[in-house]
This record gives sequence, C-alpha cells and structure tokens, in this order.
Amino acid sequence: MSYKVKDLSLADKGKVQIEWARKHMPVLDIIHEEFSKEKPLKGIRISAVLHVTKETAVLVETLMAGGAEVWLAASNPLSTQDDVAAALAVEGVHVFAWRGETQEEYFDAIKTIAEAQPHIVIDDGGDLHAYLHSSAEEIARKVFGGTEETTTGVHRLKAMEKQKILKYPVIAVNNALTKFMFDNRYGTGQSTIDGILRATNILIAGKIVVVAGYGWVGRGIALRARGMGARVIITEVDPIRALEAVMDGFEVMKMDKAAELGDIFITATGNIDVITKRHFEKMKDGVILANAGHFDVEVSVRDLESIAVSKREIRNCVTEYVLPSGKRLYLLGKGRLVNLVCAEGHSSEVMDMSFANQALSVRYIVENKDVLEKRVYDVPREIDSRVAELKLRSMGIEIDSLTEEQRRYLESWK
Amino acid sequence: MSYKVKDLSLADKGKVQIEWARKHMPVLDIIHEEFSKEKPLKGIRISAVLHVTKETAVLVETLMAGGAEVWLAASNPLSTQDDVAAALAVEGVHVFAWRGETQEEYFDAIKTIAEAQPHIVIDDGGDLHAYLHSSAEEIARKVFGGTEETTTGVHRLKAMEKQKILKYPVIAVNNALTKFMFDNRYGTGQSTIDGILRATNILIAGKIVVVAGYGWVGRGIALRARGMGARVIITEVDPIRALEAVMDGFEVMKMDKAAELGDIFITATGNIDVITKRHFEKMKDGVILANAGHFDVEVSVRDLESIAVSKREIRNCVTEYVLPSGKRLYLLGKGRLVNLVCAEGHSSEVMDMSFANQALSVRYIVENKDVLEKRVYDVPREIDSRVAELKLRSMGIEIDSLTEEQRRYLESWK
Amino acid sequence: MSYKVKDLSLADKGKVQIEWARKHMPVLDIIHEEFSKEKPLKGIRISAVLHVTKETAVLVETLMAGGAEVWLAASNPLSTQDDVAAALAVEGVHVFAWRGETQEEYFDAIKTIAEAQPHIVIDDGGDLHAYLHSSAEEIARKVFGGTEETTTGVHRLKAMEKQKILKYPVIAVNNALTKFMFDNRYGTGQSTIDGILRATNILIAGKIVVVAGYGWVGRGIALRARGMGARVIITEVDPIRALEAVMDGFEVMKMDKAAELGDIFITATGNIDVITKRHFEKMKDGVILANAGHFDVEVSVRDLESIAVSKREIRNCVTEYVLPSGKRLYLLGKGRLVNLVCAEGHSSEVMDMSFANQALSVRYIVENKDVLEKRVYDVPREIDSRVAELKLRSMGIEIDSLTEEQRRYLESWK
Amino acid sequence: MSYKVKDLSLADKGKVQIEWARKHMPVLDIIHEEFSKEKPLKGIRISAVLHVTKETAVLVETLMAGGAEVWLAASNPLSTQDDVAAALAVEGVHVFAWRGETQEEYFDAIKTIAEAQPHIVIDDGGDLHAYLHSSAEEIARKVFGGTEETTTGVHRLKAMEKQKILKYPVIAVNNALTKFMFDNRYGTGQSTIDGILRATNILIAGKIVVVAGYGWVGRGIALRARGMGARVIITEVDPIRALEAVMDGFEVMKMDKAAELGDIFITATGNIDVITKRHFEKMKDGVILANAGHFDVEVSVRDLESIAVSKREIRNCVTEYVLPSGKRLYLLGKGRLVNLVCAEGHSSEVMDMSFANQALSVRYIVENKDVLEKRVYDVPREIDSRVAELKLRSMGIEIDSLTEEQRRYLESWK
Repeated sequence: MSYKVKDLSLADKGKVQIEWARKHMPVLDIIHEEFSKEKPLKGIRISAVLHVTKETAVLVETLMAGGAEVWLAASNPLSTQDDVAAALAVEGVHVFAWRGETQEEYFDAIKTIAEAQPHIVIDDGGDLHAYLHSSAEEIARKVFGGTEETTTGVHRLKAMEKQKILKYPVIAVNNALTKFMFDNRYGTGQSTIDGILRATNILIAGKIVVVAGYGWVGRGIALRARGMGARVIITEVDPIRALEAVMDGFEVMKMDKAAELGDIFITATGNIDVITKRHFEKMKDGVILANAGHFDVEVSVRDLESIAVSKREIRNCVTEYVLPSGKRLYLLGKGRLVNLVCAEGHSSEVMDMSFANQALSVRYIVENKDVLEKRVYDVPREIDSRVAELKLRSMGIEIDSLTEEQRRYLESWK
Repeated sequence: MSYKVKDLSLADKGKVQIEWARKHMPVLDIIHEEFSKEKPLKGIRISAVLHVTKETAVLVETLMAGGAEVWLAASNPLSTQDDVAAALAVEGVHVFAWRGETQEEYFDAIKTIAEAQPHIVIDDGGDLHAYLHSSAEEIARKVFGGTEETTTGVHRLKAMEKQKILKYPVIAVNNALTKFMFDNRYGTGQSTIDGILRATNILIAGKIVVVAGYGWVGRGIALRARGMGARVIITEVDPIRALEAVMDGFEVMKMDKAAELGDIFITATGNIDVITKRHFEKMKDGVILANAGHFDVEVSVRDLESIAVSKREIRNCVTEYVLPSGKRLYLLGKGRLVNLVCAEGHSSEVMDMSFANQALSVRYIVENKDVLEKRVYDVPREIDSRVAELKLRSMGIEIDSLTEEQRRYLESWK
Repeated sequence: MSYKVKDLSLADKGKVQIEWARKHMPVLDIIHEEFSKEKPLKGIRISAVLHVTKETAVLVETLMAGGAEVWLAASNPLSTQDDVAAALAVEGVHVFAWRGETQEEYFDAIKTIAEAQPHIVIDDGGDLHAYLHSSAEEIARKVFGGTEETTTGVHRLKAMEKQKILKYPVIAVNNALTKFMFDNRYGTGQSTIDGILRATNILIAGKIVVVAGYGWVGRGIALRARGMGARVIITEVDPIRALEAVMDGFEVMKMDKAAELGDIFITATGNIDVITKRHFEKMKDGVILANAGHFDVEVSVRDLESIAVSKREIRNCVTEYVLPSGKRLYLLGKGRLVNLVCAEGHSSEVMDMSFANQALSVRYIVENKDVLEKRVYDVPREIDSRVAELKLRSMGIEIDSLTEEQRRYLESWK
Repeated sequence: MSYKVKDLSLADKGKVQIEWARKHMPVLDIIHEEFSKEKPLKGIRISAVLHVTKETAVLVETLMAGGAEVWLAASNPLSTQDDVAAALAVEGVHVFAWRGETQEEYFDAIKTIAEAQPHIVIDDGGDLHAYLHSSAEEIARKVFGGTEETTTGVHRLKAMEKQKILKYPVIAVNNALTKFMFDNRYGTGQSTIDGILRATNILIAGKIVVVAGYGWVGRGIALRARGMGARVIITEVDPIRALEAVMDGFEVMKMDKAAELGDIFITATGNIDVITKRHFEKMKDGVILANAGHFDVEVSVRDLESIAVSKREIRNCVTEYVLPSGKRLYLLGKGRLVNLVCAEGHSSEVMDMSFANQALSVRYIVENKDVLEKRVYDVPREIDSRVAELKLRSMGIEIDSLTEEQRRYLESWK
C-alpha cells in the first residue's frame, strides 16, 4: 500500500469530517449504493488530481465502491485537509497530498499518480492532463478517457483538441447544467454573502450593495443581497443583461456613478480592472470591497496599493487602506475570491452535484470507451438530467413525466 | 389611395389610441426619429400581416418614417381595432382590415397586399409567406426578404427551408433575446395575473397557486404570483427545471398531488392534457383554472365538459362547472390564453421590444439583400443588443463598456 | 313585506353574484352555519346602512340565519348593485336601495330603516348613528348597541362619546386587527396594482414606482409593486417609518427628488397636497398619477387643473393633462381611490374578514347588552382571534396551542 | 486613576477594534460630535454595567465627550473583550472587567462602580439597579435616574415600581421602536442565518426551514431564510400572527406536521418546549436544530439528551445526537442563541441604534431630573424619532416634513 500524507493519526478526525460531508451529498450517496451493487468500475484504475477535501473524499469512496482503485494528488498545494487525507490513506486510497507542499512536491505527486498507469484520469485545472500529454505519452495513450472540473482546464484541453494532439476523450464536467448553473448561482451567491458577514459582521439590511456583472454569479449575489434587505445596484457591459437586471427590479448604472453610492462593492465579471483608482477616489468613506469573480484583478489591488498612504489589517480578512483624503476603504480577503478566502467556499451540497457528474461521467467513459473519440465532450444530457433526478429523489420530490400522447404532441409542433 | 376599413370616421379615436401606445414604445420612437433622418427604407414597399392594433400602428408609422410604402392586412379576423385601422388609412397606409372579417375576406386581404409586389414582407403566423410561396411565386421571387413574428410561423418557414423551397431570406424575429425573454417572462408573467384579477377579483395573498411548467412563461408567472403573496407550487416534467424551481424556493410536486392543494391552477407548458379528469376530481371546491400556455388543450376543457353535470357563466370570463360530487370549478376565458382573453395581452412596452426588432430587421434586409441567402436567420446579435441599448437609453440608463485592455483580457482566457 | 329596489326581475342575476361572493367568504360561511344552529339573533331587529353589494348580501344572509330581521339602506347613493338588492328583497330583506338615489331619497331610506325600531344598528360612515341621535332619540334610547365599519364613522362616534351624548354602546369594527391589517395591507396593496393595470395596461417590471406613505397601505403597495418587478421609492414624513422602509431595501427620499425619477406615483398618506404643482413641473413626460389613500386631495387635482393647458380622456379611467412645457401627465380615476374607481375595490375575501367581525360583534352586543356601557368599544380581542381562527380553519390550516406549562412559563417572565 | 483589566498592553489592539465599530455606528458618531460641543453631561458621573465590547466602548466615549466621568463593569463574566477594556482604561475610563471573572469578582466589580456614587446608572439586565436598591440605598437615593437595556431588566424594574420601592426614574431603552424593531427583526434575522452558515456551511437554497414563532424575531428570520432561497414553514400559537404568515405567502402548520418536513428548525418564540421528544422522533435524518429565541429551553435539550444513544461534536458549534433509530440530529450552539454562540451577535449598526437611545436618554434624564418621577418610563417619542432621523442623516437620506396645512388637515380628521 503506497501513500504519503502528513499524519496518519489524524484519520479519525478526518473520518468525522467525511461523514458530515456525506450527510450533505445525497446524490453521491445514491450513486455510491448503485456502484456498490453493480461494480461498474471493477478493475479500473483512476488517477485524480483534486482538492483533497471532505467532499472529494466522498467522491473517492464512491468510485471505490464501484470497484475502482484510486490514486489521488492535490490540485493545489494549500488546499489539502490533512485529516481527510489521513482518513483516505487508511481506507486504502493511494493519496499523495499534504497541506503546504512545495512546488516540487506538488508536481512529484502528480507524476506519482500518473505513473500508476490509470485507465481514467480526473483533473481539476489540467495539470495532470498536461503532464500525461507532455511527459508520459506512453501512459496517456492507454488512458480510456478523462474528465475536467474547471473552466481553465477545459480551455487548455480545447486548445489541445484543436491542435489534434489530444490522446484520449475528455468529458468537460464543468459544462454540465447541474454543475455551473448551481454552483455559480446558488453556491457562490450564498457563500459570497457568507464571506462578507464572517469578515465584517456588518448589517446588510439598508445598505447599498453594488454588484458588478449580471452573469450567473452576479445574479446569485444580487438575489441574496436583496434577500438580506439590501438595495442592489448592478453594473454591466452587456446591454441585454443590463436590461434583464432592470426588469428584475434592480438599479443599473455605470460604475463611475455607482462608486459614489455604494456601501459594499462585489465584483463578479471575470474581467480585469472593474474597480480602479478613479472609482476608489469617488467612494464614500468606509466602503467595503469584495471580489467574487476571477482573481484579485477585478478590484484593482494594484491601484489600491499605489494610492493608499497606509494600510493595516483590521480584522481577519479585512485590510484597511487609507487614501490621501483620509478616506478609508476596506478590502476583503486581499481581493481574492471572498467566498473561498473569508468563508468556506462551496457547501457540500454544491460539490455533490458537481461530483455526481464526475462519478457518472467516469462510468460513462468506461462503458463507451470503444466509441468515444479523442475529443472534448460535454456531459451527456442524460447524465445531467440523471443528476437532477437523483437530487430531487434525495429530497423526496416526485415530478411528472410526459405521457406518450404528450410526447407526440410536443414533437408535432416543435 | 387604396384601403378598406370599417368606418373612417373612427380615425380620431384611433389616433388617440396610437398616441397612448407611442408614449409606451420609446424604442420604436428613437428608431422612428432615426428613420426620419436617414430614410433607409426609401422606395421600399412593405406588405405586412399583423394584428391591427395601436402598437402595430406605431411600427407602421416608423416604417413609413423611414420612407417605406406600407400595405397592411390583419393576422386574425377578430383582432383588428377598427379605430386604429381608420387612423392608419387616413395616414396613408394601404390597410385592408376590419374586425369580424369572414375567412374569405381574411384571405382576400392577404392576397391584396401580396399583389402589391412588396420588397419586404412582415408576417405573424406565416399565412402571407405561405400565400407568396404557393400562389404568387413570381412576386415572391422579387421579394428582398421577410420577417416572422411567431414560433409557429418560424416553424413553417424552417420546414420550407429544409425542403429548399424558400424563395427569400427570412429573419425569425421571434428568436431575438430581447423579444422572447421579455415577452414570455415579464409580459406574460404580469398579464396572466392581470387576467386572473380582472376575471375574478380574488385576493391572491395567502392562496396556493399551482403553476404547471417552469419555462420562461412559468417562471414569470411564479415570480409574480409570489410577488402578490401567494404560496406557489410548480409542476414540471424536466428534472433540471424542476430542480431550479426547488432551488428558487418553490415547492415542486406531481400534478396529482398539487391538484389536492391548489386554489388557483395556471398552465404554461405548451403541451396537451396537463390538467385532466383525474385532477379535476381531486381538486378542492371552488378552485380557479387558467391557461397561460398554448391553446385550450392544456387544461382539458374536453374532460371538464364531459364530467360536468352543469355549467354557467358567473362573471365575464368565468365559467362555473359543477361536478357530480357537487364541487364547483371555475374556468377562466374558456381555457384559452387568460392574458389575452380576460385582460389586454401584452402591454405596449413589450410589443415595443418585439417591433423594434422588426423595424431594425427590415432595415437589415434592405441593406444586406445582396449577401443574404434564402435561409431562415436569427436576428443578428447586434440588432438584439441595439434594441436593449435603445431601451436602456429610453429609460435614461447608461452602462459601462469594455476598455481595450478588458476586451483583450477576456479574449485571452475565454 | 316592505322594500324598495330598482327592478325585482334582476333577482336571479343578483343571486348568482351572491353565490360567487359566498364562495370567497368562508369565514362568514362558518358563522352562517353556526348562527343557523344556535339562532343567537332570534327576535332581534337589525337596521344596517352598508354598501349594497354582493358581499353585504352574504353578511345580511348570515344575520338572518341567526334569526334576525334585517332592514337595509345604502351607505352611498352610487354604490348599490341593483341585482343584489333585488335578490335580497326576494329573500325577505327590507331593503331600501337603488343605484342613483337622490340625496333626499338617500336620507329617506335611512329614516325608513331607523323607524323600524332596531335593536341593533350597523353603520358605514355614521349617517345612521347621526340620524338616530339627532332626529330619533326615542328610538335610539331603545337600541341595544351598534357597530361602525369606517374610520370616519368611529371618529364621529368618539366625538359623541366625549360629549357624553352617546345613547348606546358601539363596537368599532374598523379597529379589529383582522380588519385593518388585512384590508389595508393585503387588500388595498393588491387592488391598487389591479386598478393601475386595468386603467393603463402598462408593464410594471422595470418601472420606477414612487409610493408616498409607508403606513399599512403604503407598505402593501410597495410590496406588491416590487413583486411585479418595479424599483420602488418611498417618501415619508415620519423618520421611524422612513427608516423601516430603508431597512426593507427601499429607496427613501423627498418627493421633490422622487418627482424627477418616478414613472408611476401612488399616494397613500391620508393627507392633502402630497403631490402638487411644484412636483408636477419636475416630473418626466408621460408619468402616471394614482391615489390609494384618502380623497382626491393627495394628488392635488386642483393644482393639476390650474396649470394644465389642455385635458382629455385617453382611456377609461385615464385623463391626460398637458402642461405648458408640452409634457403629458396621466391621472387615474380623477385622483379618487384608484382601486375603487378603476378596479373593483376589495375582494370578497377581504370583506369576509371585516364582516365576520361585524356578525360576531352583533352577537356580542346581544349577549352583553346588560353590561355594555354607552361607549365606543374596540372589537374584543377574542372576536378578533376567533375571526383569524375561522379563516385559518377555512383554509384547512391547523396551528399549535399553548400547553399549560408553556402558558405558565410565559406568565412567569412577561 | 482606578481600573482593573486583564492586560493593558492589549490597548492598541483594542483601539483598532473600537475604530472599526465607530465606522459602523454613525448615529453615535453624530451624537458624539454634538456632545463634544455642548457638553451636556459636564460634571456627571455615570456607572454602567454593559457587555464590555467594542460597541460599548463607542457609547462610553460618547458619554465622555459629553463631559461625563464613566465607571464601567461587565454585564456578563464571559463577554468582556480584554483588548477593548484595556483601550478604555488607557482612555481614562474606570473599567473593572475582564473575561472569565468569577461570580464573586463579577459582583465586586458592580459594587465598585456603584460606590463611585453615580448620578446616572446604565444597566443591562438589572444587577446594578438591584444592587443599588438592596445594598446601597443611600447612594441610590442620590441617583438622578437610570436606563435599562433589556426586557428582563425592565421586568424587574416594573416589579419594583409596582411595589413603590423604586428610588429613581428609569428609562426603558429596550422599548424604543428604534431599538426592538431593528435589533429583533433586522439584527437577529441576519445574524441567525449567519450563525447557521458559520456552524454548518450548508446550502440554504432549496431547503425547508421551519421557523417557530412569527413575532419580530421570527419574521426577520423567515424573511432572510426566504431571501436565501429556502421554502419556509411557520408554526405559531396566535391565530392572528399565523394568518399574517399565511398572507405573507408562508406555509403554516402545527409543529407535529412541520417536524416531518423540515431540514432546518429555528425557534423564536420566547417559550419552553417548542421542539420536544415527540417532534425529534418524527424528524428526517440529518436535520439541523437552532434556537434564536430565549434560552436553551425552546429546543428541549433535556429531551434530546434523554433519548439520544450517543452524542459528539462534529464541527465547532455542531453537536450530533444519534437517536435509537439511528437517525442523526444536529444541534447548533448547544441550543443557546445561535447568533451569539455561533456568530458574533448583533452588528455594530444594530447596537448603534440601541446605544444612541441610551446616550440621548442619559442626557434627557440630566435635563429633566427635576420633573421625572420615580417610575419606569418609555423612551420619549422625540428621542426615538431623533435616533431614526440621525440614522437617516448618516445615510445621506432626506425625508419630507409636514407643512402647516398638512398638520392641520391631519388633526382635523384624526
């Protein structure tokens, strides 16, 4: 048995965490039961690069219940929960992950699990796919197929597909409706508010919240901020989305004007320089700045640093910048994703939907390996629907189904 | 000058109606001004089959401001507003429409405007397109292009495209985001509630409203019913939509169960037999039944008629059916579209968005007639965006635009 | 049998109306059944001045089921539904009411029913109470007690109480929680939106709605306007209410500023001159003005008339005023209560709550006539609670009740 | 200079905390400025028993700005923030408070500040008032007056008033509209959700949340839970409140039935035994139990302990109870107030409103000491209004005021 974790004695603590997650991942739980009976992954070796968290543990256990042997490395040197890693090691997972890996150790771990000669690879960001294609082509050639969890990873794989160098089929789990519609809108919507509350403990009711961007994430945040009693202002660059925001009852204006009004600013655009120097200068004293979009470039931390005359940590996750005018601005989580840095990121329920797509996609690859081409596929619609069905079932909700007559009627006019 | 209307002396009354509509169609108003200056339709003859309403009059005036000569017939024998038709005749439109046309008169009118040898044809339902393709091929061959307002019409045209018999390019105005997203969600959402209130004057707060279907229309209705204080139950056949409804805080269940709970039922599925005999039998005494979807087949009027022991009109738009058990059910607007039959259908603001797409699509065809193929096109994205922009402008709302750096950044990672 | 109505042949039509109302007045329905069994009003003569509508008919039938003999006159010369009056006459009610009474006929009718020597009087506005106290003191002296439906009537009676000239006890039905909290907030909230939609058919989503006053009525309207997708601005003179509006997520500002922003203005303050000349002059072209508060003095029709250069009816219930600047303002229902004038006022469900308080208060007076003093009483809390209980029961809703231990615990610390 | 704190070297850290609080207490900030100019508390000695937190520090500084000398002790042995206490000591406050006082030390501190011979006393819970009345009557006799922050304290003082043993006038700050309406509804509404999120990180959207009690607190929680996407069920014992909940669109039922449906239960009744053994036994596996009402008696922890076969801490603030059936229930914060135990209690904005009433009430007592009787007074309406006005002003919000004509009109009919 091979593995490398920080401290095996943390296993019991990790086990409790995994149990708590499992309670909130009912879809994987149903799949787990199904996999246990049908063993669809019997004899399959899977190498996975994922954040080594309690939710990932529930996915890994599901794959093992299906008969798979699992090798696991971390998708980020800082995100491993050492107690969970220990628990997985005890359960027989070949886990090579600990919090605080060096860059070298991080890549070594990926190399180790790649060399396990997996039939299936699961990746979160594309580093494992990249390693297989660049440094282990022999192994890659024998891979039945892979999945990818993130937008960035899918982007890298699409580039490889375009260059016709992809060595195995990949399913872009990121594109499942039951993933992105749920984690962006409901997941990030809630956890962004959560991050702001944990960081600041301010009262949201009566505040003016400016949300930059009215995509799925921005909508989720706007809805939740309104739900907490805020008056919400939207900024957008796309006129159709801007108009939707208006019709949804929100105020819409340029950031230049919103900058003068807002108490709390939240960016969710996926773009750079959404809030910059000239906006900071217009803001009221005491405003709060948070980013729920991409990286720490949406709120321009660079600009903030350049104009501030002083800076200090006020509370955990809150940095105060004093401008030359004496005005104070409060940046949360250093401008990084506020829901990850200041709260706990996605809840188990949200990861459940995403990982259910992973588990079913893995099975799909195994069962269709002979017909799949070396392409990047969307999650098949039937898997997407199945995940929604299982989620509804886990909630005890039954829905109608079309009768034969109804199906015919729909086909006749559509 | 040729036209045929019921009574020219109604023109003044019609003019007032048109003015009222114009006040609530600011996008067309801006386009009207633009067309007046630039005359992009100079020398263009347009034949249009549309409901002859005050909103259509505003579209026609806009086309004429652009330099066009307009021939107009009704798209439904019963929907013509005679005062509006009279006003248009006085303004120089070749209008052939009156309320209560016979079937023969209806088709004669279409024939008349087809024979005017139009450069552009505008249709609502496809009867004009059909006539040109079947009975006036010579004329059709010289048409620059056409537009189509409805799903049904687009469906017919796509069939013709598939059979390669389309004689000119057609733009499916129906598919513009600024049309279907707005009229379905915001337009029908409001007017369905309006129809129910006018028909019944019941208090919605505290009632259980069952909405069948969680597409754009169903969502709009659910949102508005909740906004009036109802407890809303959704029924759906698609698990992903059903799950969205759950995550939006609604109850979701089978119609068989909802039938026992609801006070008001509203169908919005586009399908047949959504509420049938076995549901009626489970319902509480006194429930209200309305359809906001397709035809009078969603709530099965046939089933209702077959099981009822008696039937009478209680109020305008309200028919009472007594079941053998003595229970009374109230059907609104005979099961036809409740917003059209019991209220006034779409408001001018909603038609404004749709007809702005019409006006700009007509201009687009004229300017691109040499490059357009004999196909069914979606409304070009730039027109769709333009309509949204003009709507925002008419509301005095300014939005941000991407800087060059932002545009590059987006392209770099997407 | 004595009565005076317009046309007895309308009775069948009236009967249908009354049935429809009864279906939506479940609380009175339960009381009706109870009264039928227990006959608490046996031998009691009741004279009532009320709007002669289908809902009043359901109250009258309930009183008769309890054993009462009922004499009925109209509380407004214009509000009588002649078909309902006819149906009541046929049922044996001494009804003296028809639409379009002269002032003299109106007071004659009141005189007639006063002279019937009632044990109990029910009044809506105070004219019957006033007549008894000023012109029929002998009769008044023998009255067991009375009720009063309106704020104005209660005001008049309190003045009489203060002067110690009240000749019988009166219960101020108007002050029941289950009356004013429900009809103001939920009733007027909905029917105001309804009135605006029927008058204008405009789309509310995306509009800026200015609500003057954040009392019960204003809150109801603000909630419903937001529920239809509007952006809502509140004006207030009371800082605590204004702050509540802010904390509820609304914008709050002076009317002077709101006047520049709003698309629709709705007054609900109970005061004069809320919107006046200087506000009209700041408004955007095309705004809509409606009053949901007191009389036609909230929106100053006087000012509007004085500054307008022209005026005309655009649609039923919509008057267009053109200002010297050419700007057009649209006043609904001549500035009178928009929910009454442009829609149908309160729904039967709302009147049900109010009239249930009437019926139970009448019974209460009969049963407590020996202990009640010549004062104005609030509706006893147990009646108020009972009405709520019956309403819940009619909806099939069961609630918890305190255990003995819980009751003791509450008493111990409160 | 006398004081007793844990560690004076924490003063700098405390100062940062106080600054952060001050930024979110704008009403006190305005009063601070006013007090600095007018010195209304010159020569006044104040003894205060309050939670020694950053918000209390802002109140104390305000009183000192007014010229007062302040003596401060903790109102709870565990709630003192030692860094804030240190900062206050450095600023010259006679503070006798540290986290982890013994019961004896707690009462010693109260004794110390009582013996400072205050002109004004501020209390939170009534221990200082009680001490003065029982053990320091001489001192009490010279007190100008006092204030009381809590319901419990007011209750104790009212009992003393009834027995005519009150030695000075007391203002019940707890009863100010700008206190209880805001902290209960907006404060506890938000912080309860916050506590649940911090404890569990579960997704609220799509969950069934059962709120027991529809008073101010319950309303606030219900609104926020709905705002986060939950389906909300209310239980109530008062039929009028229950009916309001129904009319607000919530489901209402008995706890016995809700117990079978809920995912998350939150009690807010102020009563005992709201959720007991028989409810636990009906619940689904995995439900979450939280209390936002009184003490740990609303959710019967006693019952839970008695039926559970095992119990363990799963996460900070989450205790898992396993029932004999194998079902697991998760109790948050041991059943104590979830917003205090699992989150940070009220935000500074909420305390701002409460403490502004304190500061203005203190001034009021000083200025009216000669006319006030030895009674328990409500906060004068003008102070309540003033707090709301200042809060609006701090937000840059201006509201209308009545004209002379409007004032007269109102008086004429009310």
